[in-house]
Amino acid sequence: MKSAKFLLLLISLNVVSNLVMAAPPTCPAHLGSDCATDEWKGEFFPGIPKIKYEGPSSKNPLAFKWYNAEEEILGKKMKDWMRFSVAFWHTFRGTGGDPFGAPTKMWPWEDGTNSLAMAKRRMRANFEFIEKLGVDRWCFHDKDIAPDGKTIEETNANLDEVVALAKELQGTKIRPLWGTAQLFHHPRYMHGGATSSELGVYLYAAAQVKKAMEVTHYLGGENYVFWGGREGYQSLLNTDMERELNHMASFLEAAAAYKKKIGFNGTLLIEPKPQEPTKHQYDWDAATAANFLRKYGLIDEFKLNIECNHATLSGHSCHHELETARINGLLGNIDANTGDPQIGWDTDQFMMDVSEATLVMLSVIKNGGLAPGGFNFDAKLRRESTDVEDIFIAHIAGMDTVARGLRNAAKLLADGLLSELVRQRYQSFDTELGAQIEAGKGDFDLLEKKAIEWGEPTVASAKQELAEMIFQSAL
Amino acid sequence: MKSAKFLLLLISLNVVSNLVMAAPPTCPAHLGSDCATDEWKGEFFPGIPKIKYEGPSSKNPLAFKWYNAEEEILGKKMKDWMRFSVAFWHTFRGTGGDPFGAPTKMWPWEDGTNSLAMAKRRMRANFEFIEKLGVDRWCFHDKDIAPDGKTIEETNANLDEVVALAKELQGTKIRPLWGTAQLFHHPRYMHGGATSSELGVYLYAAAQVKKAMEVTHYLGGENYVFWGGREGYQSLLNTDMERELNHMASFLEAAAAYKKKIGFNGTLLIEPKPQEPTKHQYDWDAATAANFLRKYGLIDEFKLNIECNHATLSGHSCHHELETARINGLLGNIDANTGDPQIGWDTDQFMMDVSEATLVMLSVIKNGGLAPGGFNFDAKLRRESTDVEDIFIAHIAGMDTVARGLRNAAKLLADGLLSELVRQRYQSFDTELGAQIEAGKGDFDLLEKKAIEWGEPTVASAKQELAEMIFQSAL
Amino acid sequence: MKSAKFLLLLISLNVVSNLVMAAPPTCPAHLGSDCATDEWKGEFFPGIPKIKYEGPSSKNPLAFKWYNAEEEILGKKMKDWMRFSVAFWHTFRGTGGDPFGAPTKMWPWEDGTNSLAMAKRRMRANFEFIEKLGVDRWCFHDKDIAPDGKTIEETNANLDEVVALAKELQGTKIRPLWGTAQLFHHPRYMHGGATSSELGVYLYAAAQVKKAMEVTHYLGGENYVFWGGREGYQSLLNTDMERELNHMASFLEAAAAYKKKIGFNGTLLIEPKPQEPTKHQYDWDAATAANFLRKYGLIDEFKLNIECNHATLSGHSCHHELETARINGLLGNIDANTGDPQIGWDTDQFMMDVSEATLVMLSVIKNGGLAPGGFNFDAKLRRESTDVEDIFIAHIAGMDTVARGLRNAAKLLADGLLSELVRQRYQSFDTELGAQIEAGKGDFDLLEKKAIEWGEPTVASAKQELAEMIFQSAL
Amino acid sequence: MKSAKFLLLLISLNVVSNLVMAAPPTCPAHLGSDCATDEWKGEFFPGIPKIKYEGPSSKNPLAFKWYNAEEEILGKKMKDWMRFSVAFWHTFRGTGGDPFGAPTKMWPWEDGTNSLAMAKRRMRANFEFIEKLGVDRWCFHDKDIAPDGKTIEETNANLDEVVALAKELQGTKIRPLWGTAQLFHHPRYMHGGATSSELGVYLYAAAQVKKAMEVTHYLGGENYVFWGGREGYQSLLNTDMERELNHMASFLEAAAAYKKKIGFNGTLLIEPKPQEPTKHQYDWDAATAANFLRKYGLIDEFKLNIECNHATLSGHSCHHELETARINGLLGNIDANTGDPQIGWDTDQFMMDVSEATLVMLSVIKNGGLAPGGFNFDAKLRRESTDVEDIFIAHIAGMDTVARGLRNAAKLLADGLLSELVRQRYQSFDTELGAQIEAGKGDFDLLEKKAIEWGEPTVASAKQELAEMIFQSAL
Repeated sequence: MKSAKFLLLLISLNVVSNLVMAAPPTCPAHLGSDCATDEWKGEFFPGIPKIKYEGPSSKNPLAFKWYNAEEEILGKKMKDWMRFSVAFWHTFRGTGGDPFGAPTKMWPWEDGTNSLAMAKRRMRANFEFIEKLGVDRWCFHDKDIAPDGKTIEETNANLDEVVALAKELQGTKIRPLWGTAQLFHHPRYMHGGATSSELGVYLYAAAQVKKAMEVTHYLGGENYVFWGGREGYQSLLNTDMERELNHMASFLEAAAAYKKKIGFNGTLLIEPKPQEPTKHQYDWDAATAANFLRKYGLIDEFKLNIECNHATLSGHSCHHELETARINGLLGNIDANTGDPQIGWDTDQFMMDVSEATLVMLSVIKNGGLAPGGFNFDAKLRRESTDVEDIFIAHIAGMDTVARGLRNAAKLLADGLLSELVRQRYQSFDTELGAQIEAGKGDFDLLEKKAIEWGEPTVASAKQELAEMIFQSAL
Repeated sequence: MKSAKFLLLLISLNVVSNLVMAAPPTCPAHLGSDCATDEWKGEFFPGIPKIKYEGPSSKNPLAFKWYNAEEEILGKKMKDWMRFSVAFWHTFRGTGGDPFGAPTKMWPWEDGTNSLAMAKRRMRANFEFIEKLGVDRWCFHDKDIAPDGKTIEETNANLDEVVALAKELQGTKIRPLWGTAQLFHHPRYMHGGATSSELGVYLYAAAQVKKAMEVTHYLGGENYVFWGGREGYQSLLNTDMERELNHMASFLEAAAAYKKKIGFNGTLLIEPKPQEPTKHQYDWDAATAANFLRKYGLIDEFKLNIECNHATLSGHSCHHELETARINGLLGNIDANTGDPQIGWDTDQFMMDVSEATLVMLSVIKNGGLAPGGFNFDAKLRRESTDVEDIFIAHIAGMDTVARGLRNAAKLLADGLLSELVRQRYQSFDTELGAQIEAGKGDFDLLEKKAIEWGEPTVASAKQELAEMIFQSAL
Repeated sequence: MKSAKFLLLLISLNVVSNLVMAAPPTCPAHLGSDCATDEWKGEFFPGIPKIKYEGPSSKNPLAFKWYNAEEEILGKKMKDWMRFSVAFWHTFRGTGGDPFGAPTKMWPWEDGTNSLAMAKRRMRANFEFIEKLGVDRWCFHDKDIAPDGKTIEETNANLDEVVALAKELQGTKIRPLWGTAQLFHHPRYMHGGATSSELGVYLYAAAQVKKAMEVTHYLGGENYVFWGGREGYQSLLNTDMERELNHMASFLEAAAAYKKKIGFNGTLLIEPKPQEPTKHQYDWDAATAANFLRKYGLIDEFKLNIECNHATLSGHSCHHELETARINGLLGNIDANTGDPQIGWDTDQFMMDVSEATLVMLSVIKNGGLAPGGFNFDAKLRRESTDVEDIFIAHIAGMDTVARGLRNAAKLLADGLLSELVRQRYQSFDTELGAQIEAGKGDFDLLEKKAIEWGEPTVASAKQELAEMIFQSAL
Repeated sequence: MKSAKFLLLLISLNVVSNLVMAAPPTCPAHLGSDCATDEWKGEFFPGIPKIKYEGPSSKNPLAFKWYNAEEEILGKKMKDWMRFSVAFWHTFRGTGGDPFGAPTKMWPWEDGTNSLAMAKRRMRANFEFIEKLGVDRWCFHDKDIAPDGKTIEETNANLDEVVALAKELQGTKIRPLWGTAQLFHHPRYMHGGATSSELGVYLYAAAQVKKAMEVTHYLGGENYVFWGGREGYQSLLNTDMERELNHMASFLEAAAAYKKKIGFNGTLLIEPKPQEPTKHQYDWDAATAANFLRKYGLIDEFKLNIECNHATLSGHSCHHELETARINGLLGNIDANTGDPQIGWDTDQFMMDVSEATLVMLSVIKNGGLAPGGFNFDAKLRRESTDVEDIFIAHIAGMDTVARGLRNAAKLLADGLLSELVRQRYQSFDTELGAQIEAGKGDFDLLEKKAIEWGEPTVASAKQELAEMIFQSAL
């Protein structure tokens, strides 16, 4: 019975947004003919209710099966472990364009312009979506929420106008998880922002980041992110990498100083990515970013925003990058998405693998949570997913996956088998000699003496298959 | 309570095989001092009971939680869907050596020799293991079950002696899923077997395959496998690829003819792998092998043995390779293992990912099962897993994973949401015009005429996230 | 002295096209104020002379150092070995946009529209470029040379108008190396063309290919290419791969039939690519395409267009793919470009590596040349290369690289060391028994008998390092 | 004429070591029947002369075409730029074994034992090889030059005996470029050395490194290397990564202290590698190692040994890793080898690509050379290269490739086009405002003010194709 009903839903919503490319996008009937004006205050997602928790047996695609916001797990509400955030750019500016194809999304509220009026209507859609989804946070790039003007001043004025609306729509409950400046789309940034070979571009980037930090602060944002998409090189033949890295450090120092000057207490986050769009990005992975921060004395001013798809592109598991960040004291936020293991570019898919989500949550729990960071859905609908309901389905499935990961991680911690296995492996160091070594007092003369006394060491099985069995049993 | 008991087991079995390298391997007390002789008939795995199904809530590492051999799923017993097989080479000849390291496994029944007596004792261990694990099939290479002699005749005599014992130990219930000739380890095969640049090696390989087919037939084997580990090239600069491919075709033709001559009714299987040990292997993937078989008129004589780790090394998902084989009418057998998505070589890990196993089982069900093929555990313990119990744990976890995959696949088929979603996507072809095209009667003049009549086509959402949500919900 | 002059050139041309984004693109002074009209017949590349051969010691970036069109190598003129072709889409429609960035190219002849007038002016630029570069061929997609109309008929009329001009501009010397239909950019093709789940799209694709074949024929094109960028899947969960492959076969059968109907004698070429934009493309690599063609009985109707960057994305060297195509009798054309070995997507860079080019030319020479195919520069300027002169520099460097490859390959063949090394490796097959085996008369009984007589075979060194030394010495 | 002679040489040397596996290895006639004894002092490489420089036109495989040791390039002799070193392990302990195959090398001086006498004879072969090749340096692992004893003391005594002979054979001219302790082959190290979960192994590793540092010092070694092949993890599930990293730091601190204690002035070098044999190695790449050194306050005590094949395995070009090391002040040594761009494991091939070698030498020249480091040939013969002469051919080709790289780099520097192109790109920073920013005095208020004054920045072409053209012209 349930499945028949669900397929009906599927079909009915399909009708709304089927791609009929011959016809130009118009206001669909349910929005009314004034939907293209700023006055329109109607519903963007009619027929889609506030998403509720229905439990694992539900077949309703528009319900949570695992995420139950107020439920306590390990002494904290699920929503406080997760701190989910909607990424404005993917969800409201994602067009479905790819390197070989034109946009495919024809959302009914879009009028095909990049006007201020459109920006504001889009912002209203964003908050309706956030509320129906039941999250408290959103993330944005400056360029995605407001159109450019002809000068920096005009651009900033446009931004202020949209931000004022966003502040109003946020109300008392919703806040930005983070804001950021988009320094990669405009041709001026083709050689980078902070690492551009052009001084004028460095200046422009600084002005843009300054403003983006100000509006993030104004909106009550909890973090501010630097993703250096173009901060890198396409070829070492025409690049002075050392000079560019020095410029990047000067830029980030100035950003850290400005944060203090304006009294913004949010965390500054660097988001590593190995490549794309550049051949090599300077913030390649967590360790590379950490080395940069340490080299330039910035290690106490920044944390990291780990993105799972970026992790796998750099040859690491997401779990590895999270643990590397955590161990370096730098785990600040997670961009919750996933890549395709056979694909060499950033697919930004919604995280759907419960095994990966469980590993992610093991790190988050070890980190004592992520606050003031959280989980940002830096994930986009597939280009071929063109129904309005798909936006909800994707977010629900992503949230459920992370939630299921938390439930599984809690199970693993509760039965304790895995952590006991790890504890036992290292128990030979839980001794006087082990402690001496760990305190840095094991010099080579002593160690050689002890080695000779010890004789051939016994070496226990690493029990990897047992560890995997225990892990899988919790899924 | 359970976990304490389980850890005790863990510790007690640890003691048996801890690596104490200074001491040479000897018969451990429990085998008795005659364990090195052929007479010894004792127990190889004392303390390890016959593995039973205890259900998903069990914490016993030596019990099945999902695999229940006699239980019926979709009208067939689990054991008949699976047709699990133990790979003699990994399980009984795997040493833990790797390109940078010496062997680590010191199984108590091994005496450090490659003698006939040792080969026979090892065969007994194999059958005790098979029986305790509760499977009915095993797979072997000729070279792994019996030592080489000085001549082909001597080598064949050795093989016959071990095979006679194996036949006896098989009893009425156990049979080889498949046998194969190992044409990659000996230096004579460094340039290949059938594709060696040396005629003498081609001859030797033929003699070896001939014998291996004979003993497989004698033991009641159901299939015979060709994995061309060295059939490929390291560099095109010194290779005549065309001539080598022609030789490979001649060789396989002769094999197919010999099969008929001796009345062996088993399936001949080619096992694709893209590379390793060669830079490029001629049976790169399923499609490459199919092209070869078609080109040389061998397409009706062979099927494919798809290995999941080989699939991912060739840039495909395991599911893709299974479907490619199936669609080409070539899906004959599965080497059930898994690789590490971040690693570029064959790790041959036990399949532990329930999501992958579910996809695998969806293909198997579509194929109507695999018989006379099955699931061979071409998987090895991690080098660092050195306890005797680890052999069991790994197989149990692998079998449980595939079993869980079957249960999930059955759930997906039962609720029907996923197949309905697919059916709906293509429904425009379930029409008169669609049928005409599918019958090969849609010429371009007709199609253009229809296209002009049709106007701009509507294009429905692909609903990928919904499909993923449905899939994940079944896990 | 030379370098000073050259840098001057560099700087002066820089001035022309520096990106000043605040100013909208206008007709630069040198084109005159009517450059935006169809009447304008002036020079598109003023200051750039016809490119000449100046020999290896030249430092002139606007001269050939290795490509000397009329020079004979191995009994054929360089231009007849190469049959170079300019790819209209990259060179005249490439915008510099990437998944993270806006267009960067502001060519002075562009007016920012996709009008018919613009299409025709662009076509004039194309032919001025071709003549200055000194090549005789070009390649095109239907959609890139003419704007879409509102209906198929209107679109075809637009195409006819531009094609008529192209025919006139071609004169007696210039011809299309090939034409093709672009079935990937428009949203209607998001699920594929021939493999779309929508019947209406299949019809549309057929109409489009029909027309593109007609205009290719009309222009005297020598080949017609199928690159199935969207013919593949994003996820197997929502895909009926078998049905889609059947549709693709029906489509290609209809195309082959239509070719004969209209008397087009050009070669039909399939261009393999493993993925991007889809997760998995059906024409994954040469062997996969060959298997498809054999399965559906199309093997005699099609050849392959091998692209080097596609080769490396599929895990093969370009040389491997060329040899695979050649050995299967399918080597029809080469898309001469190169990827970045550290990057997992199609970078379409100009081939600049002389070592790779030499390997490519070894295959081409073995193939007896490529005619009626040739080398198409399916390569694009880097996004950050924004000077008009960069278009010339890139093509010149690419042509010189292939030309240098030809010279090196000729050297290798002349000194004969490499081919002699290969011949010697297989000489044991140049015997009576070898011939018997190669004739398919080596059955297993005979081979075993011979193997026993032969005894342990000797195995010679493969001399790979020597082969590499010989190869490198020729560069 | 030349080629005929050379093929004769090829054939004659082939005869020496053809693999006849049925016969056990014996002293070939030319060594004499006492070759298996310690007394034997004859020639290991009869018929192979001291390798001479014959210039680029030579076809002699046993001559240098590009490496001319005493020739001055950029004010330094070639031999002083290169400081070439022979890697004892690959060249004298490489067996040709691989994960799927047995050893293939049957060098005539080997007697199949790992005895002290064999170790000493092998050492003599090493020095004959070094002298015939004409280099001044060698590198070694402790375990590869001397057999293990039953205890640490016995093992050390064995090592001392072989080292005494090596010291004598070194004479006044030859020295170790570096020594190292081999902490990866023995099963005791299966979980790591410094990062093993077993305290006893940590002790053993310390004793071994202590001794290896002592003998390196005794032999006049210039550097000491740490390659942590097993310092990493196979699975994070059973690993306490943080604790392991702390142990590694304690270990390296103790090593640095011990170096000072014994008065060893050589450089301590860490050799990054991303994985293999472990899934994840802690010294993943240059940046990761640098971060580790900075975190634990060890940045002034260590430099890096960059290996080209390790670079590409970690997703970087070799050039990138060299530049990263250089910019961090850590470029100490180069392991000159190369990988296969299609292969995901360490192939350790001799560097044969002149383009890569030229990039490498550009970094070395920028670094002012490598001394006290150099180029170590961490490269091995292909498994199928089994002639004695292949050892020479491979080293000669590798040395010639690097030498050719130096010549090309010098040409590039001499004509200055490439460096001028780079200088011009950044010239906007060679201004007062640029200097202010680079001095860390560009705060955001100032930068915004300047940005507004500046207006939309102009952005010049990056001229990548021109840079590539200039680079290729120098090859």
